[in-house]
Amino acid sequence: MMAVPNTRPPEAAPVVAMVGGGQLARMTHQAAIALGQRLRVLATSADEAAAQVSPDVVIGLHTDLDDLRRVAEGADVLTFDHEHVPTELLEKLVADGVNVAPPPQALVHAQDKLVMRRRLEALGAAVPRYVGLDSLSQLAEVDAFMRRLGATDDTPLVVKAARGGYDGRGVRLARDLADARAITREYLARGVPVVLEEKVELRRELAALVARSPFGQGAAWPVVETVQKDGICVQVIAPASDLPEHAAVAAQQLALRLAAELGVVGVFAVELFDTVDGALLVNELAMRPHNSGHWTMDGSRTSQFEQHLRAVLDYPLGDTDAIVPVTVMVNVLGAAQRPQMTLDERLHHLYARMPDARVHLYGKAERPGRKVGHINFLGGDPAELPQLRERAELAAHWLAQGQWMDGWDPHEERRL
Amino acid sequence: MMAVPNTRPPEAAPVVAMVGGGQLARMTHQAAIALGQRLRVLATSADEAAAQVSPDVVIGLHTDLDDLRRVAEGADVLTFDHEHVPTELLEKLVADGVNVAPPPQALVHAQDKLVMRRRLEALGAAVPRYVGLDSLSQLAEVDAFMRRLGATDDTPLVVKAARGGYDGRGVRLARDLADARAITREYLARGVPVVLEEKVELRRELAALVARSPFGQGAAWPVVETVQKDGICVQVIAPASDLPEHAAVAAQQLALRLAAELGVVGVFAVELFDTVDGALLVNELAMRPHNSGHWTMDGSRTSQFEQHLRAVLDYPLGDTDAIVPVTVMVNVLGAAQRPQMTLDERLHHLYARMPDARVHLYGKAERPGRKVGHINFLGGDPAELPQLRERAELAAHWLAQGQWMDGWDPHEERRL
Repeated sequence: MMAVPNTRPPEAAPVVAMVGGGQLARMTHQAAIALGQRLRVLATSADEAAAQVSPDVVIGLHTDLDDLRRVAEGADVLTFDHEHVPTELLEKLVADGVNVAPPPQALVHAQDKLVMRRRLEALGAAVPRYVGLDSLSQLAEVDAFMRRLGATDDTPLVVKAARGGYDGRGVRLARDLADARAITREYLARGVPVVLEEKVELRRELAALVARSPFGQGAAWPVVETVQKDGICVQVIAPASDLPEHAAVAAQQLALRLAAELGVVGVFAVELFDTVDGALLVNELAMRPHNSGHWTMDGSRTSQFEQHLRAVLDYPLGDTDAIVPVTVMVNVLGAAQRPQMTLDERLHHLYARMPDARVHLYGKAERPGRKVGHINFLGGDPAELPQLRERAELAAHWLAQGQWMDGWDPHEERRL
Repeated sequence: MMAVPNTRPPEAAPVVAMVGGGQLARMTHQAAIALGQRLRVLATSADEAAAQVSPDVVIGLHTDLDDLRRVAEGADVLTFDHEHVPTELLEKLVADGVNVAPPPQALVHAQDKLVMRRRLEALGAAVPRYVGLDSLSQLAEVDAFMRRLGATDDTPLVVKAARGGYDGRGVRLARDLADARAITREYLARGVPVVLEEKVELRRELAALVARSPFGQGAAWPVVETVQKDGICVQVIAPASDLPEHAAVAAQQLALRLAAELGVVGVFAVELFDTVDGALLVNELAMRPHNSGHWTMDGSRTSQFEQHLRAVLDYPLGDTDAIVPVTVMVNVLGAAQRPQMTLDERLHHLYARMPDARVHLYGKAERPGRKVGHINFLGGDPAELPQLRERAELAAHWLAQGQWMDGWDPHEERRL
């Protein structure tokens, strides 16, 4: 079966097919409703976050060409909620005439960390020092790389699987040279290429989020600070505080330039290390709506989900200005122990205490560490940031755990 | 068949059943997604605005008890996208144990203008001078009422069908006494009770929008100005400009008091006449998300659709503050002549000129005068209001008509 693209009559609503039925597709569906579009999702089951709320769901696998063709059938464009579709399948869809956005030759830079690092280096973007290993025969490069870094055998090293990771999976911190050798051997023996990388001394992590349309229009949101815990983004501060204007503009320009050079279509996130030396190094790339952009749903004139739809359908892009001086986004992660109250009961209590909390739930079953929602808090004054962050952390903790944080004084809270 | 309410397991998402599949249900679905709820709609066809975007649609009629029972089955609450469900059917549902919100004894005040006027008068709310006629035998009351107003036979008079109207339907302006007699006779002969009403000298129309929960919590948004054309709301300015603080607070308090007195659950709109004498008179009531509240989707911390869900499910209500100093909402009404460009093409051009336009489309076929969408514009400064209104009107005109307004200079626009 071959997918037949673009068969809709001109007066009908555009149809966007999205591979993946997770929370990103769910929130994209919300945006598609406002734009009068139809979002069709490829989900692995009817229980997935997006499949619960959309009437146009194809049940299937992102690794099955026929399933991909089914979801692409008659759609104006095929896009992604995750980056796990094999390049060779996407190239077959392109050969069918399917409008794949971002196109596979761009997407590969968000799929393969080694391809990405090499390309970024060629484009002159600052990245951590690294070396790429494709096979076990190159194992001696681990030692050679450590020596090039001027490191001792006791220096920690970052070892990344080039493909298949997300939310910190596939990224491991080796304690020392022996550990780095062992982890590298393990990946390479499984046929997974490896990126070895210096452990950068960080001040913090930032993200530059932009969108690019096929026409070539680019639009950048304010640069944000992302706070990670165990490799998972737990908090975003928009805009990043104390980031000099020139550094913010440079990060936006870098993201827009990379989007253009790589041929990105859609939302594009550039995750950055803000180092103790004051440099900004590119860590990771994503080509889809991204956790660092969830604040835009309430804090920006155009949400990243609407912008992604506008970009992949080649509409002029929306205004990316922040509406308020500062927005804090916190992720709600499933608790280690099942809370006594249901999520619904916890939500009641949260709303009672914080009527300004902007809650976004994903309809997902709670499992330890799983992202089940996020909450945005809007601030009228950048000076309020510490209180805003404290309230946001409390809200996320409460919604996840069903208990207020240790040391939390409810009398204090009333003031917030 | 009897509807069995509240059968879901406690850990499952709340289910809200909404009667009517129009744009209000469509936008409520967007809000339900964020709250992790399931919205089930009763639509007359799969093409309706909400049915297009929701996976949980019951096809049926709001005048059919079995259809109502089907949509209420297992839901936490039954609520409304319109006010046309007959009271006797709602009372049967209540007898089944269905949680109907707003309850029928409240809703009747938004269904029957005569019941509403009499109740408001009893509650001491200021209303236009009126008389209610239930049968043809009272026809002489038309003349008597004109005399009580001190009007001449040439004075225009407002004649309203007590039931069945919306968007100005069922409301007619009689030229003079003879015309008033003829229209009144026509309604009464069809068994429709009539409200005769003085034609109030208006400065403008306002709306006070609030929400109330079963617990009794109330929350009021800023009072807005509504601009009508041919009885249809075409523009909303939030907050209403040049409205003294004491008058705004009085209108909010009135709406909150009426919500409590009438036992409203959900969003409640009080449409007000701001008269040349400086009085605020209650014109109409609505007990559902309302056109005057569409600005809240982009301009308030809590949208009316989220608030309605929170209210009917008895969550604590959300913060109703405006996010920006001024928001202008314009409705997009189907053009008299079919535009040459498709709506999608028009949207492309709109976005190219106005990247800050917040567009909400309803997925409805364009017919003359039919509401097919709305657009919000956010302003950073109340002094920008005239330009913001001009841009909003241009945007709505363009999106509806596919041509810029007469006399519109594109060189001027670039400045805006």
